[in-house]
Amino acid sequence: MEGRNLLRLLFLLFIAAALLLITLLNLPYPTPNAAAVLDCTADTPWCTSRNRFQPKNPHLLQNPTKKPTRHPRRHSSDVPHHPLDPLTVQEFNKASSILKSHALFKNKPYALHSLVLEEPDKPVILTRRKGDPLPPRKASVIARVDGVSHVLTVDLDSHEVIPKKTGNISGYPTMTIEDMTSSTWAPLANADFNRTIIGRGVDLTDLACLPISSGWFGDMKEKRRLIKVQCYSMKGTANFYMRPIEGLTVLLDMDTKEVVEISDKGKSIPIPKAANTDYRFSEQGNPLDMLNPISMEQPKGPSFVIEDGHLVKWANWEFHLKPDPRAGVVISRAMVRDPGTGEMRSVMYKGFTSELFVPYMDPTDAWYFKTYMDAGEYGFGLQAMPLDPLNDCPRNAQFMDGVFAAADGKPYVRSNMICVFESYAGDIGWRHSESPITGMEIREVRPKVTLVVRMAASVANYDYIMDWEFQTDGLIRVKKFPGQVGLSGILMVKGTSYVNMNQVNQQENLYGTLLSENVIGVIHDHYITYHLDMDVDGSDNSFVKVNLKRQRTSPGESPRRSYLKALRNVAKTEKDAQVKLKLYDPSEFHMINPSKKTRVGNPTGYKVVPGGTAASLLDLDDPPQKRGAFTNNQIWVTPYNETEQWAGGLFVYQNQGEDTLAVWSDRDRPIENKDLVLWYTLGFHHVPCQEDFPIMPTVSSSFDLKPVNFFESNPILRAPPNVEKDLPVCKAAASA
Amino acid sequence: MEGRNLLRLLFLLFIAAALLLITLLNLPYPTPNAAAVLDCTADTPWCTSRNRFQPKNPHLLQNPTKKPTRHPRRHSSDVPHHPLDPLTVQEFNKASSILKSHALFKNKPYALHSLVLEEPDKPVILTRRKGDPLPPRKASVIARVDGVSHVLTVDLDSHEVIPKKTGNISGYPTMTIEDMTSSTWAPLANADFNRTIIGRGVDLTDLACLPISSGWFGDMKEKRRLIKVQCYSMKGTANFYMRPIEGLTVLLDMDTKEVVEISDKGKSIPIPKAANTDYRFSEQGNPLDMLNPISMEQPKGPSFVIEDGHLVKWANWEFHLKPDPRAGVVISRAMVRDPGTGEMRSVMYKGFTSELFVPYMDPTDAWYFKTYMDAGEYGFGLQAMPLDPLNDCPRNAQFMDGVFAAADGKPYVRSNMICVFESYAGDIGWRHSESPITGMEIREVRPKVTLVVRMAASVANYDYIMDWEFQTDGLIRVKKFPGQVGLSGILMVKGTSYVNMNQVNQQENLYGTLLSENVIGVIHDHYITYHLDMDVDGSDNSFVKVNLKRQRTSPGESPRRSYLKALRNVAKTEKDAQVKLKLYDPSEFHMINPSKKTRVGNPTGYKVVPGGTAASLLDLDDPPQKRGAFTNNQIWVTPYNETEQWAGGLFVYQNQGEDTLAVWSDRDRPIENKDLVLWYTLGFHHVPCQEDFPIMPTVSSSFDLKPVNFFESNPILRAPPNVEKDLPVCKAAASA
Repeated sequence: MEGRNLLRLLFLLFIAAALLLITLLNLPYPTPNAAAVLDCTADTPWCTSRNRFQPKNPHLLQNPTKKPTRHPRRHSSDVPHHPLDPLTVQEFNKASSILKSHALFKNKPYALHSLVLEEPDKPVILTRRKGDPLPPRKASVIARVDGVSHVLTVDLDSHEVIPKKTGNISGYPTMTIEDMTSSTWAPLANADFNRTIIGRGVDLTDLACLPISSGWFGDMKEKRRLIKVQCYSMKGTANFYMRPIEGLTVLLDMDTKEVVEISDKGKSIPIPKAANTDYRFSEQGNPLDMLNPISMEQPKGPSFVIEDGHLVKWANWEFHLKPDPRAGVVISRAMVRDPGTGEMRSVMYKGFTSELFVPYMDPTDAWYFKTYMDAGEYGFGLQAMPLDPLNDCPRNAQFMDGVFAAADGKPYVRSNMICVFESYAGDIGWRHSESPITGMEIREVRPKVTLVVRMAASVANYDYIMDWEFQTDGLIRVKKFPGQVGLSGILMVKGTSYVNMNQVNQQENLYGTLLSENVIGVIHDHYITYHLDMDVDGSDNSFVKVNLKRQRTSPGESPRRSYLKALRNVAKTEKDAQVKLKLYDPSEFHMINPSKKTRVGNPTGYKVVPGGTAASLLDLDDPPQKRGAFTNNQIWVTPYNETEQWAGGLFVYQNQGEDTLAVWSDRDRPIENKDLVLWYTLGFHHVPCQEDFPIMPTVSSSFDLKPVNFFESNPILRAPPNVEKDLPVCKAAASA
Repeated sequence: MEGRNLLRLLFLLFIAAALLLITLLNLPYPTPNAAAVLDCTADTPWCTSRNRFQPKNPHLLQNPTKKPTRHPRRHSSDVPHHPLDPLTVQEFNKASSILKSHALFKNKPYALHSLVLEEPDKPVILTRRKGDPLPPRKASVIARVDGVSHVLTVDLDSHEVIPKKTGNISGYPTMTIEDMTSSTWAPLANADFNRTIIGRGVDLTDLACLPISSGWFGDMKEKRRLIKVQCYSMKGTANFYMRPIEGLTVLLDMDTKEVVEISDKGKSIPIPKAANTDYRFSEQGNPLDMLNPISMEQPKGPSFVIEDGHLVKWANWEFHLKPDPRAGVVISRAMVRDPGTGEMRSVMYKGFTSELFVPYMDPTDAWYFKTYMDAGEYGFGLQAMPLDPLNDCPRNAQFMDGVFAAADGKPYVRSNMICVFESYAGDIGWRHSESPITGMEIREVRPKVTLVVRMAASVANYDYIMDWEFQTDGLIRVKKFPGQVGLSGILMVKGTSYVNMNQVNQQENLYGTLLSENVIGVIHDHYITYHLDMDVDGSDNSFVKVNLKRQRTSPGESPRRSYLKALRNVAKTEKDAQVKLKLYDPSEFHMINPSKKTRVGNPTGYKVVPGGTAASLLDLDDPPQKRGAFTNNQIWVTPYNETEQWAGGLFVYQNQGEDTLAVWSDRDRPIENKDLVLWYTLGFHHVPCQEDFPIMPTVSSSFDLKPVNFFESNPILRAPPNVEKDLPVCKAAASA
């Protein structure tokens, strides 16, 4: 027995040494040749990760339902056309070479945590006319050099590098993809870790590990950049998320890759079985083929164009669209045509996902720290994978690539990261039939067709589908589906020794639901906070709460005893605009332009219309909630400030919550008739159920931005109905 | 001047006499010949109303965008196949002739306010096997004879007529179409009324009037069936709703058609102009043609069948579907296939719109009484007009007709009243991509296709679109769009002397929004209460509130200070299940089968998932709210009782609220492990805005019925992705 143990140990040491060697050979980062980078297509490994950990089960990596990938674009000769266009390949290379030769970086190991366009100031954009030369192109850089974070502006014309003050705030920049991937295999260099894995009965070759942001829990002294790593067995399933090595948490120094601590409190918990966890079509024995093909068809092509790569023009809408490594999708300068004057009128200067907050509801050792902030910690856009044509987006979609920079500044292409398509679900834009009462023969109905902008981010185990949907009636619907895989994903699953609920005494102490033998889906929340820089008919707006209040009638006034009255309250300062939604104290929330009135004298406006949502119930002084304090209200309004873009702060990783939207808003600045930013938070409580196993059907939530006295009248009054002669003639492909 | 007035008076008297004559000639009801009735197609006048008031502007009656009507079905030889199938033409005629010769009716004027199938008792349906002979067919009748309401069962085999006890409750049955239409012209028989109209500058030939249910406001002595009539000028527009003769209200005895009182408090208020109010495509000068054609195409045809006219089978779903004059659409015996066992499992025994409640928020003379209950007062199904192919429903829809009985018992056909279609909006059923972190090349996505059942009811001025949407993952989404026309419709508009907001001192005293010169859109609420007889895996179910409560950790327990815990509370009695939704005290609401467990021991269940909604804020002791007390909570659960179908009571018209869901529920009966009915109320507050003028873009709200541990795992795991070869090849029709 002792001999066998010794052999095992030797084997482990050998593996550890080999891995270390690979690590060293691969650091700082190997440079792929330019062609390889720019050829990045949907399934090219380099595009999914730089120095990725290669699982040893190669058959798990093949995608048997792989779609014909559209011809990838190389982007090497892209040029910017619009001042908001993202940096091009050539600009990335230029910025990168300016930085490399700069004193701060020279001959030092460094990592670029963000390299994106520095958008020109708002007035520059607002006063620019089509055809004017582009304003100077600048790059905004967040770099870590020798353990210190720097925020810099790189002027691509003058080659000047200007440092920015960030103040004395805690936290680190968004992890690089290289931070995340290297963290997943770093524990393998630790013999204790490897011994623990093997002790759990898992081959090291079957190991898959995930980097879990460590959050912050009140320790004021910690000065290291730390991450926690938890692992899974991928034996027998691509859905390794369903096979947690429960209770094992490695605390890692992300900069040195040194294992700080290994906590293993799950030795008695079996690893759940692989059976029935794989979700890939190729692995399903008996396909459930219940439906005939159905497709949205536009034989005359789509009704939108994407000019110069980023300017989307559809029906009465126009907006600038770009991918962003942190926010995912950025919509800028959304304008809608006035049906009366023909003029393009401003609705929103900029809209994007500012932060996500996903606290899990299990206080135990291996779970308490799971309080993800997916944009600021992981990069919501960095995690956006190529969309699957025909399934992620319908056949009539057009795709947009993301071009991002790796940690060393090298640009790479994320193909098909965003899609744009028109959608018709059979819904109705407006209708009226005369009723049997009047007997008039009138039946006027208009179909509803919308334009959808979509991205899907896979933040490790779970998938978010983010939609911006534009309607011809002026409405913008912002929609999020947390699609999810496995019980990781929205359900990060927990191993347990229970196999049936009849073994459980107090169900609430599971912190979730028993989903399958030895698998618990842990309760968690999702919050998505949107930055909505509304410019309704111009920059200076006011925020009005239209509160519906019960009014009692005076004796003799009316046979009615009560009715609702709408009271308009203009918010003077930020605290007036901190809103907790209340079913029994309802309001509408209008962003109006006080100096622009309709013909009959109503101020023009847009309202934010909440949908089903959820509120965070964590203690306000709980460290995760201090960091996620931007969820303390569902609505906030702040005066525009170009430094206030990220609701959880510029540096979110491991921060202490001193730079959140809540902190800014508590300054209580004046907000009447000023350039304003509206913040809205969508929420979900997720109590898992067995239907979420092993992969969850999508659930969705949304809110609307809706014109309110913005137009003089219904803007789609003159839209035509569908008529048979315009519709296509189709046949099944097989018979074509 | 005096001579002219005399002439006017004579003219009016002549018109009044002529109208009286027509009335008398038309009473009780003329019988159209059988062919005319059964040939009722979309645009046949008889089908929109029996003795309809014929406006004198015939050009307003033509529908220039009239679609080719599909070949109408005659239904005269329909036979019932399923015990829940509605009465057939032959059965209507039989019931009618049985009643006519019955002692109660013989030689007396009577009106049938309801003549529908009396559904067999639940056990008869539940134990029946396919192929068994149909149980005895019976008709359920609500009739008024000599001013007395009777509820009767007519056995169509034995010809027996059995009276039912209704108890001593106030209120009258749903109006007949004949009640409504005759009320609209009855005031014309009154010279004072006609004088008033002409005094307002409106030609009698331009008059259009609406019957407005009078509600109840505390008068315990009133024993007449009363209705209020308000009128509009249809000069120059089909959208007469936009031209109110404000402040003029006629109180009418609905039985004698006698004018009880004329109130005119609006003499100084001008009638708003006709300009820019017509919404018909033919009247639009400059069509807004922004979009290329788009269509959902299924070259291999739809994936559903409607067996024997009413049994819908699609993908893993099966349910019985029928039109109903009061509820609109009734879904019965909804069952979903278990992907493991192949067995059809019960989800819902019966689901339908039980009542609507629409209180307006203006306490003044001409408005206070507007507190509509559209199902119980007007008949939600009676108001459902033929759907417009290609616009109300997409091209791939199939249609179902309604066959109803008129007040004299004669059957008539409402063509294309319901449509059924598959919808694909480009949405996603489930997805997962492996992320850049793991670097695995996995991207599995499944498109989401749903089955929609739709009806659109035009209750005078406003339109409701009601959808039941079935998903393959077991979810049922119940959706309501209050589409609307003009400012009548969801906005019933009010005339005003204001033409600009700068004339208004206190905006809240408008009771609404100035939408155009002289036009106010009055604030109002909409509530739609659904009867959902859930039978989750069988009849005996329990209702469980899964309450999420903040739990504080003990010192030293965890670095976290707080988390959420799910506490399960099984409702013992009805009061435990009276739920007011609270954002900051959230729960899930499960209907479970306590005796059916999943493999790992969770009870099988469905949960009701509220969407965005609104709550009624009226005083509980305000008479309208007493009648609409079913909106006092968003969720209620009652033990199944076949007499408790209508949330506002069996007799809603003018009732005093003694027979509502709130009264039943306050009995506080035991509801644990019993046959249960779940009631859910969707709500909207509507503060009108100019975009709602002259016709409102649709807004929608929904709630879901969602499986929760009903399936062992994701039921659509084995669904295939879309592949190019299955999709159709299409070309534009013009080039075809």
